Amino acid sequence: MALVPTSDVAEVEMGSDSSAPTVRATVVQASTVFYDTPATLEKAERLLAEAASYGAQLVVFPEAFIGGYPRGSSFGVTIGNRTSKGKEEFRKYHSSAIDVPGPEVDRLAAMAGKYKVFMVMGVIERDGYTLYCSVLFFDSQGRYLGKHRKIMPTALERIIWGFGDGSTIPVFETPMGKIGAAICWENKMPLLRMAMYAKGVEIYCAPTADSREVWQASVTHIAVEGGCFVLSANQFCRRKDYPPPPDYVFCGTEDDLNPESVVCAGGSVIISPSGAVIAGPNYDGEALISADLDLGEIAQAKFDFDVIGHYSRPEILSLTVRDYPTNPVTFTSEAERTERS
Amino acid sequence: MALVPTSDVAEVEMGSDSSAPTVRATVVQASTVFYDTPATLEKAERLLAEAASYGAQLVVFPEAFIGGYPRGSSFGVTIGNRTSKGKEEFRKYHSSAIDVPGPEVDRLAAMAGKYKVFMVMGVIERDGYTLYCSVLFFDSQGRYLGKHRKIMPTALERIIWGFGDGSTIPVFETPMGKIGAAICWENKMPLLRMAMYAKGVEIYCAPTADSREVWQASVTHIAVEGGCFVLSANQFCRRKDYPPPPDYVFCGTEDDLNPESVVCAGGSVIISPSGAVIAGPNYDGEALISADLDLGEIAQAKFDFDVIGHYSRPEILSLTVRDYPTNPVTFTSEAERTERS
Amino acid sequence: MALVPTSDVAEVEMGSDSSAPTVRATVVQASTVFYDTPATLEKAERLLAEAASYGAQLVVFPEAFIGGYPRGSSFGVTIGNRTSKGKEEFRKYHSSAIDVPGPEVDRLAAMAGKYKVFMVMGVIERDGYTLYCSVLFFDSQGRYLGKHRKIMPTALERIIWGFGDGSTIPVFETPMGKIGAAICWENKMPLLRMAMYAKGVEIYCAPTADSREVWQASVTHIAVEGGCFVLSANQFCRRKDYPPPPDYVFCGTEDDLNPESVVCAGGSVIISPSGAVIAGPNYDGEALISADLDLGEIAQAKFDFDVIGHYSRPEILSLTVRDYPTNPVTFTSEAERTERS
Amino acid sequence: MALVPTSDVAEVEMGSDSSAPTVRATVVQASTVFYDTPATLEKAERLLAEAASYGAQLVVFPEAFIGGYPRGSSFGVTIGNRTSKGKEEFRKYHSSAIDVPGPEVDRLAAMAGKYKVFMVMGVIERDGYTLYCSVLFFDSQGRYLGKHRKIMPTALERIIWGFGDGSTIPVFETPMGKIGAAICWENKMPLLRMAMYAKGVEIYCAPTADSREVWQASVTHIAVEGGCFVLSANQFCRRKDYPPPPDYVFCGTEDDLNPESVVCAGGSVIISPSGAVIAGPNYDGEALISADLDLGEIAQAKFDFDVIGHYSRPEILSLTVRDYPTNPVTFTSEAERTERS
Amino acid sequence: MALVPTSDVAEVEMGSDSSAPTVRATVVQASTVFYDTPATLEKAERLLAEAASYGAQLVVFPEAFIGGYPRGSSFGVTIGNRTSKGKEEFRKYHSSAIDVPGPEVDRLAAMAGKYKVFMVMGVIERDGYTLYCSVLFFDSQGRYLGKHRKIMPTALERIIWGFGDGSTIPVFETPMGKIGAAICWENKMPLLRMAMYAKGVEIYCAPTADSREVWQASVTHIAVEGGCFVLSANQFCRRKDYPPPPDYVFCGTEDDLNPESVVCAGGSVIISPSGAVIAGPNYDGEALISADLDLGEIAQAKFDFDVIGHYSRPEILSLTVRDYPTNPVTFTSEAERTERS
Amino acid sequence: MALVPTSDVAEVEMGSDSSAPTVRATVVQASTVFYDTPATLEKAERLLAEAASYGAQLVVFPEAFIGGYPRGSSFGVTIGNRTSKGKEEFRKYHSSAIDVPGPEVDRLAAMAGKYKVFMVMGVIERDGYTLYCSVLFFDSQGRYLGKHRKIMPTALERIIWGFGDGSTIPVFETPMGKIGAAICWENKMPLLRMAMYAKGVEIYCAPTADSREVWQASVTHIAVEGGCFVLSANQFCRRKDYPPPPDYVFCGTEDDLNPESVVCAGGSVIISPSGAVIAGPNYDGEALISADLDLGEIAQAKFDFDVIGHYSRPEILSLTVRDYPTNPVTFTSEAERTERS
Repeated sequence: MALVPTSDVAEVEMGSDSSAPTVRATVVQASTVFYDTPATLEKAERLLAEAASYGAQLVVFPEAFIGGYPRGSSFGVTIGNRTSKGKEEFRKYHSSAIDVPGPEVDRLAAMAGKYKVFMVMGVIERDGYTLYCSVLFFDSQGRYLGKHRKIMPTALERIIWGFGDGSTIPVFETPMGKIGAAICWENKMPLLRMAMYAKGVEIYCAPTADSREVWQASVTHIAVEGGCFVLSANQFCRRKDYPPPPDYVFCGTEDDLNPESVVCAGGSVIISPSGAVIAGPNYDGEALISADLDLGEIAQAKFDFDVIGHYSRPEILSLTVRDYPTNPVTFTSEAERTERS
Repeated sequence: MALVPTSDVAEVEMGSDSSAPTVRATVVQASTVFYDTPATLEKAERLLAEAASYGAQLVVFPEAFIGGYPRGSSFGVTIGNRTSKGKEEFRKYHSSAIDVPGPEVDRLAAMAGKYKVFMVMGVIERDGYTLYCSVLFFDSQGRYLGKHRKIMPTALERIIWGFGDGSTIPVFETPMGKIGAAICWENKMPLLRMAMYAKGVEIYCAPTADSREVWQASVTHIAVEGGCFVLSANQFCRRKDYPPPPDYVFCGTEDDLNPESVVCAGGSVIISPSGAVIAGPNYDGEALISADLDLGEIAQAKFDFDVIGHYSRPEILSLTVRDYPTNPVTFTSEAERTERS
Repeated sequence: MALVPTSDVAEVEMGSDSSAPTVRATVVQASTVFYDTPATLEKAERLLAEAASYGAQLVVFPEAFIGGYPRGSSFGVTIGNRTSKGKEEFRKYHSSAIDVPGPEVDRLAAMAGKYKVFMVMGVIERDGYTLYCSVLFFDSQGRYLGKHRKIMPTALERIIWGFGDGSTIPVFETPMGKIGAAICWENKMPLLRMAMYAKGVEIYCAPTADSREVWQASVTHIAVEGGCFVLSANQFCRRKDYPPPPDYVFCGTEDDLNPESVVCAGGSVIISPSGAVIAGPNYDGEALISADLDLGEIAQAKFDFDVIGHYSRPEILSLTVRDYPTNPVTFTSEAERTERS
Repeated sequence: MALVPTSDVAEVEMGSDSSAPTVRATVVQASTVFYDTPATLEKAERLLAEAASYGAQLVVFPEAFIGGYPRGSSFGVTIGNRTSKGKEEFRKYHSSAIDVPGPEVDRLAAMAGKYKVFMVMGVIERDGYTLYCSVLFFDSQGRYLGKHRKIMPTALERIIWGFGDGSTIPVFETPMGKIGAAICWENKMPLLRMAMYAKGVEIYCAPTADSREVWQASVTHIAVEGGCFVLSANQFCRRKDYPPPPDYVFCGTEDDLNPESVVCAGGSVIISPSGAVIAGPNYDGEALISADLDLGEIAQAKFDFDVIGHYSRPEILSLTVRDYPTNPVTFTSEAERTERS
Repeated sequence: MALVPTSDVAEVEMGSDSSAPTVRATVVQASTVFYDTPATLEKAERLLAEAASYGAQLVVFPEAFIGGYPRGSSFGVTIGNRTSKGKEEFRKYHSSAIDVPGPEVDRLAAMAGKYKVFMVMGVIERDGYTLYCSVLFFDSQGRYLGKHRKIMPTALERIIWGFGDGSTIPVFETPMGKIGAAICWENKMPLLRMAMYAKGVEIYCAPTADSREVWQASVTHIAVEGGCFVLSANQFCRRKDYPPPPDYVFCGTEDDLNPESVVCAGGSVIISPSGAVIAGPNYDGEALISADLDLGEIAQAKFDFDVIGHYSRPEILSLTVRDYPTNPVTFTSEAERTERS
Repeated sequence: MALVPTSDVAEVEMGSDSSAPTVRATVVQASTVFYDTPATLEKAERLLAEAASYGAQLVVFPEAFIGGYPRGSSFGVTIGNRTSKGKEEFRKYHSSAIDVPGPEVDRLAAMAGKYKVFMVMGVIERDGYTLYCSVLFFDSQGRYLGKHRKIMPTALERIIWGFGDGSTIPVFETPMGKIGAAICWENKMPLLRMAMYAKGVEIYCAPTADSREVWQASVTHIAVEGGCFVLSANQFCRRKDYPPPPDYVFCGTEDDLNPESVVCAGGSVIISPSGAVIAGPNYDGEALISADLDLGEIAQAKFDFDVIGHYSRPEILSLTVRDYPTNPVTFTSEAERTERS
């Protein structure tokens, strides 16, 4: 595990006397201990401790780090069919997920407080019998701040995860700047990004499960489009990070994969508002990838292109974000309580 | 700094027994302390105190007095190109701007209340990473009333300032009459002026950065066209009022300018509804230019020409003003808050 | 009668090799032969011939040159009262007006053709028993092109002239550029000017009866606002240019005026799009005031401020011009004829 | 002040058992207390009280009763000229006018309620700096119902009053029948009358400032043409009802008038739908002129001639009334408010 | 039979040197020779000759002079019933009517030419089996110019006369001015009058059968409203001018009337544009009533009130006149012919 | 000038038997003949002919190819200042622009028809005195289809180009698929892209002036986000492609540049919906860059991510596009014409 040194910032002549703050940020590239949530929490704490020892003020974990990303599984589903085995798989996956709030959330909050780090953590959230792919936010004083639920799962994810609504797209104002997150291919949704830009996101976290090269183009583009830092955290996983066959099968591979096979190559990266890659991408193994974010670069970037300011045309193009909760069932007595508060 | 005495009003036979009120108004002709907003606020207070000591009830400051008018700068921009130095310049300029509302606005409001003066103040407003050239209004009880954002910046201003929408073209009804403002070349936009006339503006403030002689024709015309008093406040600046080279460069000048060179000659002026110049224009240095405005002259002027009354032809010519806010992104929860408030 | 030489154009470095055309224009400052329309037509021809001999391609006459501007008359009207003498005055004034089209219009067209001059002529138009203060346009081939009827008479004019509608606000595309006219205080109507700007007026004619100094501010402002040349033609009249008392009385003057008294001082002027006065103003007597208009200056002026282009905010401010004729009575058979033609 | 007894109604054989209601109506013939609006309101109340004591259910005041009809004034205006004194006159006249709504309107409404009388009141309405000659309607429960603004002022009135649009030509349905008003020479406009007939006017009020004998022909004709009662109220004024010279001058009179000179002779009158004069005309002095209006006569008159019914030829002759407001400037937010309210 | 001398024109100071023409006009007050059209034509010629001998240039006959006004007849019609006698009456009345064109029209044209008089003649026009109450126009050169068909008969007239359409409301431009006609109560139709005003009528002929006093108010009003001369011609008839009973019965009179009883009292009159009665009304017997019309008075009257010019509000109130012929049956071949011409 | 061979398409197993069409597309990387529009048109034709000779069916030219991209110029503008030389520069630049429609558009349409190529051409459009950076579309039958006006110019471009409205964001349905264009940094506006995706764009043209490496990330991202082909065309220019100093100055460069200096390095590129670069980027010189676009790849890409279909969340995020024209002035007669046409 190696610290990737922060790449040189191109425009060095801006000097060090700037009044804008600098934030040391780390993206975690590591794998879940699959089907073992307590062990995963332990691992999270170790990684957090290490990052903190390097001075990290902000640490971003990958998508589904707690609960796991069940790569390669089909959950026994084909069109018009499903298997008992797949159902059992889901039962186990459901068990590994966490309630929010709940004891695991308390544990995570305590960690953030202990290491005095702002933490952005990918989790599988359990809400009754539906799971959500969520990101939780904790501040450095050990407080759970809130969550973002992925609003649109990709492909087969749609059979294991529900769809978030517009009420959990938070951007938190922190002493380090405004922080929010979008998960994996959500990042390809222009209107969702626009909602986050409108909330003023400055440190844009992109926990993901996509390690393809083309992902780098997207996160680079987002940094430029949004005039923000983009922190993309992905797991680095080998076959052996999942239970061995036949307990866990990578569908569609003739023979089972070699335990050392890389099934998710990482590619975690940090990009500046000018589109410069300032740390990563790393495709070599688990790693903590860190960089110092000079927040003053944001103003410089927005000088050229402020997507929700001088470079918008609101009289032509305007986005409406319905950010209230949508529930299939509402009890009027609850509504009343809400109204009164 | 000298008080320019009010010139004689032409039609003296109207007498002093009139029931229409008289308002002592002062336009401030002074320069920003560039890149030093706290010092500029200090200077504003000194000027305000002095004007109040002469009995001023209404004080109008120039365009961009707080935040500064970055005269002579190119922000490193040519067509298709920009420099790092220009971006850094913007970062510093962005830092000198103020949030509205915000602590500097509170300070300004307190000043107006302390000296019991209605104050019209040109500022550079910071809204996230986009700046606006705005005018703020404060009443003599120390309340911030609202703002006007310049709706159309001129030439190179378009790369440093955003464009206001139709929701901030206020005219305030005050005990001294109806007061509004348009900034610099906005005053050349006939439809914008018409919107202000329709709101009943009686004391039309024209903070500006234009010291050319032809500006006098425009403000005289506006007084006659609108049947209102026009108060035009411009900065008087020498080269030395800006940081010395190479920190701040007046582009396009072979050698840098002499520190004593006048880079903005002022020309602040007060004009009556009949088109008579009743104070100024002053091109000599920093000054407080004052006049007593006899509001009864408005009815006399409108008797001849009431641009939105008897001299309009609404069945032929009608202007629509879209005065709602335009936003690139609207969150429904905010909209609700607005509707309820 | 003297030719006022064209003043130097400020920005001489633009050179003479420009591809934009130059137009020699003359504004006529002369008085009507009052109550004698045939003699006035004779005088018009003499003035036109003289202007043509100096090379004028465009000649603009004052407001009401044909028909006369009945300065100083009250037409016997006070509030709630009118005199027989005033009615008789109107009958004579009505007789001096001309039908459009009609024999006098034919005569004027012939003149324009004979001297190969584009002519803009202020007339009193008779339509049944209502008079209109109109401007007629004639091209250099001797064709009557159309007319503008003043849409809003000023003060007492409202008892002798009707109100034009939105159907006669023409701007004519000519080899010399786009030519239109607004009359006297109409020029103070921002929405009317905006309509003309939208039609692309480049040579803006402002026949007037206003010789006050403040008029100069307005025409200068219009040149700058519209980015166009402004040609303001006013009559120069002495008391003796009107019939002697008691046939014609200057009301409100204790004793009748001395025959040599100047009752309208002229002030005819030509202004460039940058606001530079390029000929006149002349307050000395009857005169032909001429200048060479470099149409290339328009693009330069619009680069800074294009009131209907880049410096408009149509999504906020939009003007509707109802430019169809309004008639108290419409006969369907006429409508049909019009549609067919 | 004397009550003119109701003249005998011609067709007495119609009997008293008719089911159609009878309305006791009074037209007020009295003068404004010039330049003294509070005193005029006092006088209005005294007249109203007296009318009510005679059983009046409907009371019609003359044109411009509140605010005054500035008879004999020229406001210093001749063609092409105006004086400072005239402007000052306008300023005073403007001060005597009332805002609608406003405190004076509240006062008038309260009067109507106190005396339980439907009141039709001529006022000078102030809308910013333009005045309108308006008629206000109040019901007997003390409610202000609405107004009619004169759409076309006569002669010199055009320099002191603006032009109403098509949105204020109301006819109110009341327990006493349908009531509307047209002011002075508006009554000579056939298309305006036709608009009122089409709205079903039954009690047609004609506040006026015309005391010539020919006026009687017009109001008689209107009663017959419209099949309605016509109530014409005019002021009776002597020279002394206006301020003495030189404060107020009757222009065009060699020497100033004798204080006792009658400057407006009244001629207030009430006419039935058959063209019968049923009260007045009175040319002797201030008076209350009353009659009992038998509304059953309307059906009798319309049997012969129903101008908007059986005696119209709509397939040949059709009138379009554009009765929406026309404004030089419309703010979209207002439009919304209007739509919502 | 006596010439009623022209009443003094009020405003004599206008003098005789005016350039506007004067027209000697005569209205004929005489009765039809009932049921005897040839005799009526003879009588018409005698009256015309007499008028011409007094210098008349224009002669106006009453409504239905040729063909007769069947006063007092019910044509046997009650609601739901008609009698054979009544049908026979109609057959005789139908026989007395004339075709237009036709031999009687030729005769009338010849008369006008012979006496060099412009003649306006009331006739009963036969078009197949429907009759129209029409007015025919003949110039002084003996040409039939055209006709006006009454567009709306009154009361029982509706069972004997058809309804004219919008194609016969002519106003003829003549050397004596613009001449048109409306018949009897048509004159009470404001939209019809407005159509005639719009056509520029200057000499407004009002042949009538109404001799009530209230008629004078209407024609006076029309003169003032239209700014035109009104020439109202009515028959003067005694009972003996109709066939004796039982051939012709005046229904609803207990005993038949005395032969000398006046059944139509005349009241023919000429009124100037100022509303001054300049000849008549005559209620004494058959008469030629003449006056000299000073057409210059029209401009004076329109100065005050031009119903289709400066005193119209076309943007609010606009009348559409459908002036094409309406036919129950149209043969396409005819339409084609019309289109080709 | 060299043909860059189409790179291998990655997923070759899709085979050639697909029913989806293949389109041969060429992006042109070449420079304007600056200030010489006729010569530029000649050059465009030569390039088009060459592309056609290689079988190109669709040819995309760079931003501002006709009219030129005035790289390096400051147009003499600094904050608060402008020079005569800069104004003269604008006049020349204005002269090089083209009217749309107009003769140059006709010429371009003819070219497209002659070579049977669908052409997408970047032009500087002249609309009166305001310029727009536009893209014109021509089909292979020689028809001009329409235009896109850049809605938001970048940085200094804002002083030379106006802002397009929402009415010109076309996507044309063609036999080759749906084609649209966004210009340069507009491509960084997520809401604009979303509007184009919603119109179904399949071949997304991105004429640009940006040759930085980060541009490649944006166009790659767009291809993936939109599931479309992206064709980015940029000019390749050396200093010598602009007039030599002092006629044309690259501001901010100490000494003038070497004539051979590359001032715009190109980087034109073609990218497939999967984010694969299939031709280019070329940074070496002028070139025609071609590829065969297999439109079947679009469905494959959208299977994963359909930004306006299955991967949208319209109940949360919805964009409103105001695509009507906005004009500062609207003439109602034009509106009518538009409605009729």
